[in-house]
Amino acid sequence: MVDSIRIKATGSVSNVACGFDCLGYSMEKPGDEITLTKNKLDEINITISGIQAEKIPINPVKNTAGKAIISMLSYLELSHGFDLHIKKGIPPGSGIGSSASSAVGAVFALNKILGNPLNEEELMIHAMEGEFVASGSRHADNVGPSLYGGMVLIRNYKPLDIIHIPVPECLWNITILPYYEVNTKDARKILPKYVSLSSAVQQTGNLAGFILGCINSDFNLISRSMEDLFAEPLRKKLIPGYEIVKNSAIENGAIGCGISGSGPSMFALSTNQQTAELVAKKMQFSFKKSGLESKSYVSKINKNKPQILD
Amino acid sequence: MVDSIRIKATGSVSNVACGFDCLGYSMEKPGDEITLTKNKLDEINITISGIQAEKIPINPVKNTAGKAIISMLSYLELSHGFDLHIKKGIPPGSGIGSSASSAVGAVFALNKILGNPLNEEELMIHAMEGEFVASGSRHADNVGPSLYGGMVLIRNYKPLDIIHIPVPECLWNITILPYYEVNTKDARKILPKYVSLSSAVQQTGNLAGFILGCINSDFNLISRSMEDLFAEPLRKKLIPGYEIVKNSAIENGAIGCGISGSGPSMFALSTNQQTAELVAKKMQFSFKKSGLESKSYVSKINKNKPQILD
Repeated sequence: MVDSIRIKATGSVSNVACGFDCLGYSMEKPGDEITLTKNKLDEINITISGIQAEKIPINPVKNTAGKAIISMLSYLELSHGFDLHIKKGIPPGSGIGSSASSAVGAVFALNKILGNPLNEEELMIHAMEGEFVASGSRHADNVGPSLYGGMVLIRNYKPLDIIHIPVPECLWNITILPYYEVNTKDARKILPKYVSLSSAVQQTGNLAGFILGCINSDFNLISRSMEDLFAEPLRKKLIPGYEIVKNSAIENGAIGCGISGSGPSMFALSTNQQTAELVAKKMQFSFKKSGLESKSYVSKINKNKPQILD
Repeated sequence: MVDSIRIKATGSVSNVACGFDCLGYSMEKPGDEITLTKNKLDEINITISGIQAEKIPINPVKNTAGKAIISMLSYLELSHGFDLHIKKGIPPGSGIGSSASSAVGAVFALNKILGNPLNEEELMIHAMEGEFVASGSRHADNVGPSLYGGMVLIRNYKPLDIIHIPVPECLWNITILPYYEVNTKDARKILPKYVSLSSAVQQTGNLAGFILGCINSDFNLISRSMEDLFAEPLRKKLIPGYEIVKNSAIENGAIGCGISGSGPSMFALSTNQQTAELVAKKMQFSFKKSGLESKSYVSKINKNKPQILD
């Protein structure tokens, strides 16, 4: 057993249009690096260092990674102190699972140090506890992809039911992060409490179509199904130039496009690298026309779990 | 080309719990027999005979099969008269696609007589026109299974997008039709116009899980996913003894149970014939305890399209 470990956990795209609040997939980059080191204290005492984003609290009870560690140690009835060093690669509030990645990296690291006492489903619970302090809700659609890799469906929360969705080998993700702030809690507040039965039915059909499209590599079906009737109609107003950026993605060959998480990041899918890179360029250009600089991440869906760096 | 044809179109289970208003599958029995014969009139003039159910109108404009024929002839700009003989095997108002089967049998028969001028998607449109006069809405979740066979997802209506769902070979259907009347229009009226966002999200996850379960023959996942948060909570009140009947299905090995269509029929699924027959018996017994005699239909999911009898 080691006393210190360095882990990289990557960001993720959640919601994925028709999969609002129940679907997500892992990105190859960016990611957070979590270094966890056992210290000499024999109580649950977590120190946090390394974070440079000013909005992230370093009080371990309020920090997503710190809280996840505390939750897991408490569950295991272990009284140890740990030094947690967080190198944020994912800007907070970006809509690509920044807090989830830190929480996942933290519980993954702790589990390794402790000799893997918990399985992945149990790790999920504690990572979600961490996610809760950042987002105000115990969502799993970023935590799940970051922990399991690939694309996952959160079928249910009570009990937690996570299902792996096979993804066509040639599917590429494009994520564009504009330099613009959308607060996660505000983005949740704008959501409707109720939706019409007809749009709810349509969304169930869309998600079913999307999943079938993934399984059968039916890109036309994936494309037809990528419509979100719940969040996008309201949340798109929070992102300057949303329609223009989306249109530029579709016009340049993306099979679908939407808000990543609660935004402001937007994601698109394509069936090859060349199109993905073109779509990224055009989406960035469209954001620019709306006055926003941005950063792009283009890669296949990431199949890997968190990686041990050393 | 023939001038007369006899077709059997079978009933179907729609909604299928988590697939409310967008999923259905075909049953092997019961079915309606439609005999369509070209008469000598050179105008769209349909005579209807044979129906014994008193609630079914024989005015062709108000009859589901008659209206489907008229819709299709008008679309094809053909002025022919036809004699339509309907032998109802499916009681109207039973919740197993009685009107849809007649409409499907009618358009299927007419297409055969005319030398197949329309493809199945086009036949769907006219069968749905027929269904409309019976149910007051252009639903496709009974028409689709009856026309295509197997299990189908209606992903979208505008434009119509019908997707075939592969079904595990060993899946058996149990449908119990209690002798009790639930009016389709009343059953629609009781539905909520709005549902909570959280239950809508859960239902999308359930349908996605159900579809994945079917594709992977994961019966546990199918079972976990078979929960309807939209219609069942309200419609079950219209069916005497609903909870008792459902419990008896689950306790005796069914992997799921729910309302077939808008009721009063109930359906259950099982993974083998022996269990299916036991479940049918127990469900009928439970209905009897609630004072209702019933009829049962046990078979695999029906993969066949309408059959030409002669």
